Amino acid sequence: MTFDDFASRRAGWLDGAGLKASFVISSRVRLARNLSRMPFTNRADDINKQEIVDQVVQAAETSPCPEMVYFDTNAQDNLQRQLLVERYLISPALATESGPRGVLVDETESASIMINEEDHLRIQVIHSGLQPFDACEAALSLERDLAGGLDFAASPKWGFLTACATNTGTGLRASTLIHLPGLALTKEMDGVVRGVAQLGFAVRGIYGEGSHSAGNLYQISNQLTLGRSEKALLEGLDGVVNQVVECERNARETLAREAREQIEDKVWRALGIMERARLLTSQELMNFSSAVRLGIDMGMLQGLETGTINDIMVATQPSHLQHRAGKALEANERDILRASVVRERLAA
Amino acid sequence: MTFDDFASRRAGWLDGAGLKASFVISSRVRLARNLSRMPFTNRADDINKQEIVDQVVQAAETSPCPEMVYFDTNAQDNLQRQLLVERYLISPALATESGPRGVLVDETESASIMINEEDHLRIQVIHSGLQPFDACEAALSLERDLAGGLDFAASPKWGFLTACATNTGTGLRASTLIHLPGLALTKEMDGVVRGVAQLGFAVRGIYGEGSHSAGNLYQISNQLTLGRSEKALLEGLDGVVNQVVECERNARETLAREAREQIEDKVWRALGIMERARLLTSQELMNFSSAVRLGIDMGMLQGLETGTINDIMVATQPSHLQHRAGKALEANERDILRASVVRERLAA
Repeated sequence: MTFDDFASRRAGWLDGAGLKASFVISSRVRLARNLSRMPFTNRADDINKQEIVDQVVQAAETSPCPEMVYFDTNAQDNLQRQLLVERYLISPALATESGPRGVLVDETESASIMINEEDHLRIQVIHSGLQPFDACEAALSLERDLAGGLDFAASPKWGFLTACATNTGTGLRASTLIHLPGLALTKEMDGVVRGVAQLGFAVRGIYGEGSHSAGNLYQISNQLTLGRSEKALLEGLDGVVNQVVECERNARETLAREAREQIEDKVWRALGIMERARLLTSQELMNFSSAVRLGIDMGMLQGLETGTINDIMVATQPSHLQHRAGKALEANERDILRASVVRERLAA
Repeated sequence: MTFDDFASRRAGWLDGAGLKASFVISSRVRLARNLSRMPFTNRADDINKQEIVDQVVQAAETSPCPEMVYFDTNAQDNLQRQLLVERYLISPALATESGPRGVLVDETESASIMINEEDHLRIQVIHSGLQPFDACEAALSLERDLAGGLDFAASPKWGFLTACATNTGTGLRASTLIHLPGLALTKEMDGVVRGVAQLGFAVRGIYGEGSHSAGNLYQISNQLTLGRSEKALLEGLDGVVNQVVECERNARETLAREAREQIEDKVWRALGIMERARLLTSQELMNFSSAVRLGIDMGMLQGLETGTINDIMVATQPSHLQHRAGKALEANERDILRASVVRERLAA
């Protein structure tokens, strides 16, 4: 698969399916692992790092896990790296660091392994909907496949050893990407954020600060891993997300009962603007997409699929647009191309 | 023709044609006339008023002028009267006065005669585009046709006698309805309004106060008639409107040169919202219609006709909506029906 092929397709987990898919876009699990007898990445020289890359890539090739393609971050230009950041496949840190490093990605983009980020390996699995247990099972299965060719640093007392102590133990971090337009419209979001934080989970808007997020998209994740089992962590996350989903469901029911015409109008206007606009900033598009997604989920819009909206949100990010244009674009040029891509996808 | 047939059609002069139709929607001329040997309307009793109605209606029936239908305002309900106000066929004053009164209307709604408004007869002719001379010629022709059966009050010294001295002489008032979105966007409207006022013409926004009008629609009219010939009045109006049109044309050229993408975006978003909204206030619709009209006139929107926008603007006025619904509607109900009518007309 060439990078261009990869760049122009949509990840399988963005199909809008999965449990509670009207509320939860995706569940993500990552496992931090390090190779024994090698310095942590921040103390490794380029020779060490190349050795780590070689070992992990070879282990993936020879393991029974699904075939993965390796993107060598060191050999990529900045636009390609940023495109991988926009796809959640590498972190902003990995994009800007130096030295041998990269990412292995499976065909559906469900599974990936960052090499030489903060830890030698960051194994990530994303599933659509609220499925943290399935995602974790897939990540652990991938880890077991790799363990045949790799020796992971671990201690009987502490569990898996990691560069940062907050990850030590299971090395697990689990998060969900959740769409909360109802709570935003009923102005209950601040209370929900406080409640979730008190239960020991982090909530952050993925496009914006604190409890306000363009597009009403929020990530809920566990804060700590040390001293807890994978099962306990996932059950905790699953429980809190289910509570937030209930709050959101109630908010939507209230809106449907008390302000149906206003919500329908908001939804249809957002679609009308997406179908017709000639300029769209990313923040505007997030907000219009949120309204259209809500319209689909509340049964107000027929004939339009959530997958199309997900597709639009991926394809209209700055680096995706510039990759499509084949050159760097000014903000205004991106707004024009973004509107064009949105029209094209909605008309398809 | 029944009132229902009448209510559901569009006036011929709203076809979007005529001279400078990209700027000037219509030209209107009215002639004030009174019957000699009858008291002015404000001093007439109901017997006088009925006599005036009978004389004028009979004169119209027996004259060579095109066939006209008579709407008896006294016999109409309030909704029907307000619908005629929305069609510019009767004044708000005629709608709310009492006693025998009404309006004669020709088949295309180009020509009409209000009976027992401030003057016994208010002969009105509206043509599309900038055609005040043609409109005046048609009004004078209608007046000549009626003069065979009516005796108009006139003095050799003062000309035609009218209830208010400001109309004495020719009894002529001429006005144009003009669309000035370019001057609004370039923020030059205030200066133009001042300039036109200094030349002795009135400019008023037809939906709003002073120099700001929802929909960017303005009426320019002559202020005085006494002591001036019809020709001088019309040449004056034609001259000032042509100057305003040049200002607007320059503003649009500036916008096309310096902000084409922003204007196109504004135009297309307005169309998208009109196509999709579920609630539309009249003021919002005026503004969206203005943008779409500008888009048609600047060649940005193909396949959509100005006549369709004019049609929408007539059909979505409050009394038109209520007539369509067959009952009185609350504001929110009107907004729902208005949005529905707009979608229907744009999809047609």
